[in-house]
Amino acid sequence: MILKLTQSKATIDDLKDIIDLLLEDELGQTRENASNNLDQKYINAFHKIDTDPNQYLMVVKNKSEVVGTCHLTLMPSLTFMGSTRMQIEAVRVAEKYRGQKIGEWMMAEAINYTKSNGASIIQLTTNKKRSRAKNFYEKLGFEATHEGMKLYLR
Amino acid sequence: MILKLTQSKATIDDLKDIIDLLLEDELGQTRENASNNLDQKYINAFHKIDTDPNQYLMVVKNKSEVVGTCHLTLMPSLTFMGSTRMQIEAVRVAEKYRGQKIGEWMMAEAINYTKSNGASIIQLTTNKKRSRAKNFYEKLGFEATHEGMKLYLR
Repeated sequence: MILKLTQSKATIDDLKDIIDLLLEDELGQTRENASNNLDQKYINAFHKIDTDPNQYLMVVKNKSEVVGTCHLTLMPSLTFMGSTRMQIEAVRVAEKYRGQKIGEWMMAEAINYTKSNGASIIQLTTNKKRSRAKNFYEKLGFEATHEGMKLYLR
Repeated sequence: MILKLTQSKATIDDLKDIIDLLLEDELGQTRENASNNLDQKYINAFHKIDTDPNQYLMVVKNKSEVVGTCHLTLMPSLTFMGSTRMQIEAVRVAEKYRGQKIGEWMMAEAINYTKSNGASIIQLTTNKKRSRAKNFYEKLGFEATHEGMKLYLR
């Protein structure tokens, strides 16, 4: 199968396919709503992301099919001499497309986007349950120097 | 010493004191600029933070003295049914005020701020070199479920 990959800022028309990728994920299955109709909460969140110039919800397509997504957030900061950071969240590749370097392609696009926006630090966290993910990011040059800590509020 | 703590959104008048806290930090000393005059990069970064409604640069004072700071960023997201996340960065307490629970007080304020802004996940990373920090956050209910990974771009 020859891939023809493109990436763009997601539109509302991509949202259902993106949620499907989140649902397909091993950890996402317990977190997301799988009904056929898109939950309004997703639509509301999409609009918050879509209208904020610091957010870039990337959708990767093979021809017209959604095969990957990640969510980039520019964060101005004081540390490191006032460096802007890029936070990457919700990195997903469609299961049936695994093993074809789509993740690598998407991360290269994310790094390009980061550079073109003047950010100099890229940061992400990956669940320790995702045994292969840490290795994937290390191959791209990321270092696991930090503990990633979460607090879920009721 | 009886503390009289208040917290507020930092103003430009607090910036020098905040940078001094970043400089005092063991890891910050190699990262920040220690000249007497504030580097313009800090001022530019401050204005980006100050004008973005998703950013809250908190300054904690004892009476009029700056004793702590942290930087909160609201991040809309699709995951967890379109939950908003709060990212916490650059948590610092003045060295001479350590051991007086100012960190705990500041984090309680950060959690209140998070709740009042409708976010349901608080996330942060802490450098694995900061041996006591992980324990500090665990006592507050955070769990170190993730690897925190960084990539510094040239």
